Amino acid sequence: MSSTFHGNRISLTVFGQSHSEAIGMTLDGLPAGIAVDTDALQQFLMRRAPGRHEWSTPRTEEDAPEFLSGLKDGFTCGAPLTAIIRNRNTRSRDYSMLKVLPRPGHADLTAEIKYHGYQDYAGGGHFSGRLTAPLCIAGGIILQELERQGISIHARITAIAGIEDPSPFDMAPEDMEFPVLDAAAKKAMLEKIARAKAEGDSVGGVIECMACNLPAGIGEPMFDGLENQIARLVFAVPAVKGIEFGAGFSAARLRGSENNDAYCLENGNIRTCTNHAGGILGGISNGMPLLFRAAIKPTPSIAKPQQSVNLKTRQIQELTVSGRHDPCIVPRAVPVMEAVTALALYDLI
Amino acid sequence: MSSTFHGNRISLTVFGQSHSEAIGMTLDGLPAGIAVDTDALQQFLMRRAPGRHEWSTPRTEEDAPEFLSGLKDGFTCGAPLTAIIRNRNTRSRDYSMLKVLPRPGHADLTAEIKYHGYQDYAGGGHFSGRLTAPLCIAGGIILQELERQGISIHARITAIAGIEDPSPFDMAPEDMEFPVLDAAAKKAMLEKIARAKAEGDSVGGVIECMACNLPAGIGEPMFDGLENQIARLVFAVPAVKGIEFGAGFSAARLRGSENNDAYCLENGNIRTCTNHAGGILGGISNGMPLLFRAAIKPTPSIAKPQQSVNLKTRQIQELTVSGRHDPCIVPRAVPVMEAVTALALYDLI
Amino acid sequence: MSSTFHGNRISLTVFGQSHSEAIGMTLDGLPAGIAVDTDALQQFLMRRAPGRHEWSTPRTEEDAPEFLSGLKDGFTCGAPLTAIIRNRNTRSRDYSMLKVLPRPGHADLTAEIKYHGYQDYAGGGHFSGRLTAPLCIAGGIILQELERQGISIHARITAIAGIEDPSPFDMAPEDMEFPVLDAAAKKAMLEKIARAKAEGDSVGGVIECMACNLPAGIGEPMFDGLENQIARLVFAVPAVKGIEFGAGFSAARLRGSENNDAYCLENGNIRTCTNHAGGILGGISNGMPLLFRAAIKPTPSIAKPQQSVNLKTRQIQELTVSGRHDPCIVPRAVPVMEAVTALALYDLI
Amino acid sequence: MSSTFHGNRISLTVFGQSHSEAIGMTLDGLPAGIAVDTDALQQFLMRRAPGRHEWSTPRTEEDAPEFLSGLKDGFTCGAPLTAIIRNRNTRSRDYSMLKVLPRPGHADLTAEIKYHGYQDYAGGGHFSGRLTAPLCIAGGIILQELERQGISIHARITAIAGIEDPSPFDMAPEDMEFPVLDAAAKKAMLEKIARAKAEGDSVGGVIECMACNLPAGIGEPMFDGLENQIARLVFAVPAVKGIEFGAGFSAARLRGSENNDAYCLENGNIRTCTNHAGGILGGISNGMPLLFRAAIKPTPSIAKPQQSVNLKTRQIQELTVSGRHDPCIVPRAVPVMEAVTALALYDLI
Repeated sequence: MSSTFHGNRISLTVFGQSHSEAIGMTLDGLPAGIAVDTDALQQFLMRRAPGRHEWSTPRTEEDAPEFLSGLKDGFTCGAPLTAIIRNRNTRSRDYSMLKVLPRPGHADLTAEIKYHGYQDYAGGGHFSGRLTAPLCIAGGIILQELERQGISIHARITAIAGIEDPSPFDMAPEDMEFPVLDAAAKKAMLEKIARAKAEGDSVGGVIECMACNLPAGIGEPMFDGLENQIARLVFAVPAVKGIEFGAGFSAARLRGSENNDAYCLENGNIRTCTNHAGGILGGISNGMPLLFRAAIKPTPSIAKPQQSVNLKTRQIQELTVSGRHDPCIVPRAVPVMEAVTALALYDLI
Repeated sequence: MSSTFHGNRISLTVFGQSHSEAIGMTLDGLPAGIAVDTDALQQFLMRRAPGRHEWSTPRTEEDAPEFLSGLKDGFTCGAPLTAIIRNRNTRSRDYSMLKVLPRPGHADLTAEIKYHGYQDYAGGGHFSGRLTAPLCIAGGIILQELERQGISIHARITAIAGIEDPSPFDMAPEDMEFPVLDAAAKKAMLEKIARAKAEGDSVGGVIECMACNLPAGIGEPMFDGLENQIARLVFAVPAVKGIEFGAGFSAARLRGSENNDAYCLENGNIRTCTNHAGGILGGISNGMPLLFRAAIKPTPSIAKPQQSVNLKTRQIQELTVSGRHDPCIVPRAVPVMEAVTALALYDLI
Repeated sequence: MSSTFHGNRISLTVFGQSHSEAIGMTLDGLPAGIAVDTDALQQFLMRRAPGRHEWSTPRTEEDAPEFLSGLKDGFTCGAPLTAIIRNRNTRSRDYSMLKVLPRPGHADLTAEIKYHGYQDYAGGGHFSGRLTAPLCIAGGIILQELERQGISIHARITAIAGIEDPSPFDMAPEDMEFPVLDAAAKKAMLEKIARAKAEGDSVGGVIECMACNLPAGIGEPMFDGLENQIARLVFAVPAVKGIEFGAGFSAARLRGSENNDAYCLENGNIRTCTNHAGGILGGISNGMPLLFRAAIKPTPSIAKPQQSVNLKTRQIQELTVSGRHDPCIVPRAVPVMEAVTALALYDLI
Repeated sequence: MSSTFHGNRISLTVFGQSHSEAIGMTLDGLPAGIAVDTDALQQFLMRRAPGRHEWSTPRTEEDAPEFLSGLKDGFTCGAPLTAIIRNRNTRSRDYSMLKVLPRPGHADLTAEIKYHGYQDYAGGGHFSGRLTAPLCIAGGIILQELERQGISIHARITAIAGIEDPSPFDMAPEDMEFPVLDAAAKKAMLEKIARAKAEGDSVGGVIECMACNLPAGIGEPMFDGLENQIARLVFAVPAVKGIEFGAGFSAARLRGSENNDAYCLENGNIRTCTNHAGGILGGISNGMPLLFRAAIKPTPSIAKPQQSVNLKTRQIQELTVSGRHDPCIVPRAVPVMEAVTALALYDLI
């Protein structure tokens, strides 16, 4: 049912298109009495907002949510929580070209096929990365609540354009805008982005997300395990093409005796000596930090000319997309990862 | 809700524990009139069944499903389809050790915490790999139906214990029991497995799965895209720790201009020149082969002694698991991947 | 999950409180290309709107929906459809009394218990009858689509304050505002309402709803039959306290030989000679008109003093609610019945 | 999705046909550690079982559930709980007549249309009243758990064949097999049943169900209120054609001042002086006894000849059903009402 996540505790509906009147979300199932710090939420949303860095698109939406319902005097009231963000530039530009000349790497063609011409193609419509803003409103509220319960979720960039950050994820990144722990790697990444930008191109990367102090015993067997649930929500972010938990694909190269996390004792508590499992066994949290990585493909929107096919003439045609775009969406995707992780965990707690 | 998948078209419930009276599944939502070839299904189940190869556990369950309901004269009748497999060796062995000495890499500890002592710990209970048999019953039936609709799903092994098969996935594997396309890689993999077995250890690997002739336009935006749905179901298989679609994690290293699949024409049909997207754009199929890879961790069950913690004495204790185990579960996981992919796709078609 | 209906084809979320910034709804799962006649929709909403008749509350909200997403050039675009209605009088009145002195027959007390003080008590909050406006937006759109498919849904009043309309439901009512077929019954009902109004009291009634030309074969066995589904949605309307299909409670007094609808032929088509089943057998439509009646309790809001208990002082206290209220909500509930019936049927077609 | 109830806490799947290998159910979502007294459960199932009274069908199924999974040493283990009942007389009789000559009042015709000939028509297939046995297994287990939590659920017969029991429901009925409080009414009802039986006919009735000590605050607004939820599950019972809560349809005849339940104090606790609301306000329990009545139509299976239409010849044809049937299903439906009520409440607690 497309854009409604119907979970165990919460239902989340994300609505809106890139250039519709508004985008927004409804979060249903929250108990009454959850505090919402709208200032802190706005700060969080700014990390995702475009137009503030050399690496991001200059579209200058404010992304200031308006709460329509569900909130009373700063607390949830038990009724569904709805917040919207008005789109400023509705229909300002002519996007009709996208209807006949689909952009490679975008959902233009699949939307045309699925919605047989009725789709809102302007700016990618409902498939626009802009729809991650409502995800961040929902997730940002939940992040605050989890923090209150002692559960903290942080994400960082581990790779951009092939440059990897070798640092272990043992601290929350200081620079929340471009959260790379290793200074040299960070510098190299920024250079890669600048070069891609100069060439009208884009780069991708890998984001690592960690949840600390998640109690052991969270998650369900089979279809509602932590991995199922997190993966299901992480793939709601358009650019994600892969996810791995703990050692992930590396585990496939290890022996069982190497990959199994031996049990040990720490201050009388049972822990594992390593964390190849990423904090999850049988879909259920084991008390170790929950850890996963998501692969973010390079933004498909680039200035370089690309080959497409004209749907009307059925001829190959070169496509040049005007307007300036994100050369690297990875930094702005970091808070989105934190947001969807928060939603995934909260729904199972 | 743990073990019930509540999808768009179908509901699937998987029940049973490793040593309960039976394991089984109910598939609800199938239209009436779907043919079920039980002989072909049995063949399919044999590919997953243990005890038939040097690389698999010698547990000799027959895995012959008994259909309790939903089937009439070889066709679905519209009512929920339930099939069970009786467990032969119910409670034959003493598993009480697992309750106090959790096996590393298994769900013994997390189940103990989640179910506070009431879990069925024998043989891993509901977390046992044995529960993939009911997944194969459900998926095997759907595979037959998809095949009838012209959609074929095949999986193959691309890596075991670090040995990679460099072949492109351009043909269905002939050897369905150990489906590796490259003969040299296959030989090397088998050697790795034999060595691990000899040392009481295990190895993991990577499975690649492809769906051909899936019509364009399948999948929903946001939470019910093909990636969300497939990931959600693939992670129901206990050993999976990662999944990537198309170029996956490699895409994160490419430029947008490299990763975007340019559109071209093939016999008048719109295709993409490359398939880095794995056949999915915006969560929706684009008519190219759907392609993903799943990372399978080495079986946690090994004969080598491992370090655990005794939950009663709260002391570190060496654990030696008796009985013979799968040195490599990867070949038997291949049909399981096909099964869950079939379920994921069918639910969205 | 409270206010999200997660159906077979559609998901419907209704949000808002009586005095929040806005009320609204998101309808997800609609295919692209469904026409929405907003003028006709506005006409439909007017039938529910307050303030236009002697029998309704003078609150003069315009109930003009603003579409935020999902609609493009008058057609659905495949993305979730969100529409809101701004509340004019947000917080204009002092409702704090409702927090300590719950109104009998309202949800004031149960909300206080459930949301432990955080509920939005103003005007009944999320429990207000005002929330039937978003139901009518969603249902009104679906009514248009069903009409296009040849399925028409009409409701009428069969009883108010004990006055019954003996007419058979063999025609759509002309007067859509007060749809009673029998003129004498109508007159008597209006007198009953006027008298109740004069005495600061209210009256209830019974609404009968019929769907014609619903194809045979719609509905699912067990939990998703037509009766389950319609009942589930009809009870979303706050004032409903009972529902019966076809002969309903009268069927309980009949013999099987009387109640069973014998089969007959009509122009070669199989019909039933009577329609005690209300068009439903085994939860599935049989091609006869679908028929049900819903009992609407008298509006709990009355001007007469009532006995309540002060939650702070724990003393019995007389409650007098100021403001003018609906003496009879039944006429305005008629389009709501049509709306929820349309949603229930569409979800199963 | 037909026969899977996907609730807030639990998922329930009911499978089987009247003459399939087995009927059964899977209850998923139960926490580990819930005691299941299988002897008490068997006693409960006997109240529903046929063949034990003059008023019931002589089919002598034992209805002894076999637990396949989810139960360990008398307690739930956290995994899905599956129980089945083997059908003894599978395909013993020739039912092929039902395929061409649909029985009035049964789902024979609607199943034929919906499943276009593939349905399992023997004995009504999945639509058979026999499927209430698995509902009773699931509900019987939950009844035990609710009882442990202090919540008791009892149902009684208030009317059969027009004979009404005027007694207030202020005590649990002693005679669990034919639970009528008033002795004279009981006698008259039995006579009505005997007469109908003698004439090859059947009678219906009304069942009243009450839940005591349900905590206040249970239920959700809009679509998951107590009324929505109970109605949804009660209509899973084939013979039910109506449901009303508290004063129900009578409330529609009252003034607001009469129907509103004034608040009062009882030992310092807030209660209502009357209980026209049936313990529910705004879909949420208010601490008063929850009360509803369900209309049970007369069993459609009768010995009297009836008019049907031959689907092959398209001619009107007289139908005489051989075999002996329930002249009155109402007493056996009483435990079923208790069972579904338990499931509905437990899912929202």
